Amino acid sequence: MGSFNSTDYPTIALDDAAGKIIIIDQTLLPGEVKLLRLSRMEDIFEAIKMLRVRGAPAIGVTAAFAMYLAGKAAQTGDPVVFSEKVGEAADYLATARPTAVNLFWALGRMRDAMDRACGEGLDVPGIKAALLKESLAIRDEDVAICEAIGAHALSLLEPGMGLLTHCNAGRLATVEYGTATAVMYLGHEKGYGFRIYCDETRPLLQGARLTAFELAAAGMAPTVICDNMVSSLMKEGKIDAVFTGCDRVAANGDTANKIGTSGVAIIAKHYGVPFYICAPSSTLDMGTEDGAGIVIEQRAPEEVTEMWYKERMAPEGAGVYNPAFDVTDAQLITAIITEDGVIPPDGLAGRYQ
Amino acid sequence: MGSFNSTDYPTIALDDAAGKIIIIDQTLLPGEVKLLRLSRMEDIFEAIKMLRVRGAPAIGVTAAFAMYLAGKAAQTGDPVVFSEKVGEAADYLATARPTAVNLFWALGRMRDAMDRACGEGLDVPGIKAALLKESLAIRDEDVAICEAIGAHALSLLEPGMGLLTHCNAGRLATVEYGTATAVMYLGHEKGYGFRIYCDETRPLLQGARLTAFELAAAGMAPTVICDNMVSSLMKEGKIDAVFTGCDRVAANGDTANKIGTSGVAIIAKHYGVPFYICAPSSTLDMGTEDGAGIVIEQRAPEEVTEMWYKERMAPEGAGVYNPAFDVTDAQLITAIITEDGVIPPDGLAGRYQ
Repeated sequence: MGSFNSTDYPTIALDDAAGKIIIIDQTLLPGEVKLLRLSRMEDIFEAIKMLRVRGAPAIGVTAAFAMYLAGKAAQTGDPVVFSEKVGEAADYLATARPTAVNLFWALGRMRDAMDRACGEGLDVPGIKAALLKESLAIRDEDVAICEAIGAHALSLLEPGMGLLTHCNAGRLATVEYGTATAVMYLGHEKGYGFRIYCDETRPLLQGARLTAFELAAAGMAPTVICDNMVSSLMKEGKIDAVFTGCDRVAANGDTANKIGTSGVAIIAKHYGVPFYICAPSSTLDMGTEDGAGIVIEQRAPEEVTEMWYKERMAPEGAGVYNPAFDVTDAQLITAIITEDGVIPPDGLAGRYQ
Repeated sequence: MGSFNSTDYPTIALDDAAGKIIIIDQTLLPGEVKLLRLSRMEDIFEAIKMLRVRGAPAIGVTAAFAMYLAGKAAQTGDPVVFSEKVGEAADYLATARPTAVNLFWALGRMRDAMDRACGEGLDVPGIKAALLKESLAIRDEDVAICEAIGAHALSLLEPGMGLLTHCNAGRLATVEYGTATAVMYLGHEKGYGFRIYCDETRPLLQGARLTAFELAAAGMAPTVICDNMVSSLMKEGKIDAVFTGCDRVAANGDTANKIGTSGVAIIAKHYGVPFYICAPSSTLDMGTEDGAGIVIEQRAPEEVTEMWYKERMAPEGAGVYNPAFDVTDAQLITAIITEDGVIPPDGLAGRYQ
């Protein structure tokens, strides 16, 4: 695992003096830890598109830093020309991953900050400073939100408990702490001695490749399981709570997350294990009534039949069903944990609408 | 997929004239279809040990044919010397896979046939004939049992239904039809047009590699899914019934089968999908009261972290939980289907004790 240590550097950093964003190339994990130092918009675009940086919050922060760097590199003293150049960079970055909501959200927030600065009549250095400030605020808020989610989650647990997570809603998907993993990092800092299990999360193995990697690097000695071992583990009484992230939460609490999440929730309910969704409030979609309104992306068959393997592991004649996400019904969710607290699914509407 | 066609040859065949057993090397599937023609005991031993032939019924039939071939090759006219030589071969074969119950069962049955023939005062050619007859009977009974299980299962279904299976309890694990797949083969022959889904079955991918392969070869156009997609598929209403095999059924109906089976059963119950265990009555263990009495084998971590993959996909620092089987509680099982009929779990004791 090379020299990776979770305290060495965040998932995304800005080297302002050098005019570069620093990220870990997540496509090479867990085999190789390689830091990328990027300044060209084309390189940042490529890193987002190719999942070198991934996870909605991490993509948002990367895009915000990128817009600042686009402005920093702009060779003009005219605020209008400057705004146009930076706006072009934002338009370009927005096409890197068309379905990543946080990407648009972060770019929009940076644009608003730029427009406000222009509206206040600031000169180009002043607008650049406003962009830097906003990008750092987006980053800092992400850290604070994850930490708050972790603290709320930790209040539900006792030392020595067994925790299960699915996919990667970890620090590699955010700036620090992660969403589902924040409780693990905070518990580890406080010596809670949790026993932590990671679903490998087929087909792309984010649990084995990323979550187990980052938790092991932080000294938590996680245990990897195949996705089909959840029932066996819970039957043995080894899991006291499940924490996962989410891609989108509907107003009634129905939650879209990585494929397999709903199955884990059903099995958890069967064994009486609490199941928690960790969700920054920005992922609450109160305009969508329930899970039926969430469209699920179907991905390429090759992810199931070919990727990662030494040789093809399903016959040419076989079809493949490969949804990227599934929807977990609200009644399977014990609570949704946001930065504001631990909220039962039927309490979301009263709190956020 | 080469020229494999399910009607070309059975999983295991005896070429009596040539003194050889013919098997498909299952370790090469689905990439290559290679027939092995084996006569030396060492080669047959290796084929069982290395899982070139696998599945409890298939191993049993292979061992029975091997004992016959050991006798056929014996250069003696003395029944006592002959019995000793064949007995030595049986002792040797029994060590190929120490946990495979059907291996001992088949070897024991062949020994009993030999002892009976000796006791009746038959000469060596007569004993050889008795061994041939018993090995063919073991093979034929396996085919008949699987076909009966399939017919009972088919009586529960309507054309066009969606069926799910886990791991490989297919013809590649038996002589013909399989146990869990018998209903699919029989339905296919009758033009039922089932939509068939195969769990890939991590870590060793028997569902993707073997079940999808054999069903595709038979023209059933199966769809492969990752193990964590069962809930999504059932939520969409695509599955009308689940059929799996089993390794051992306790007297109360608790059933040990490939890891992941119990999770599928829990999810099926949640969605109201019937869940059936297909079990030759030889796998009913009426001496074991319930699932708590079934010991579950833990297998090597490398199966999860390294096998099949181009590169290691979990970090060195991570632990691994890798049970080979799990126990599905009787209350999750709609019925157990044996060659004798469709039996609710709480009806086993009355029927078989």
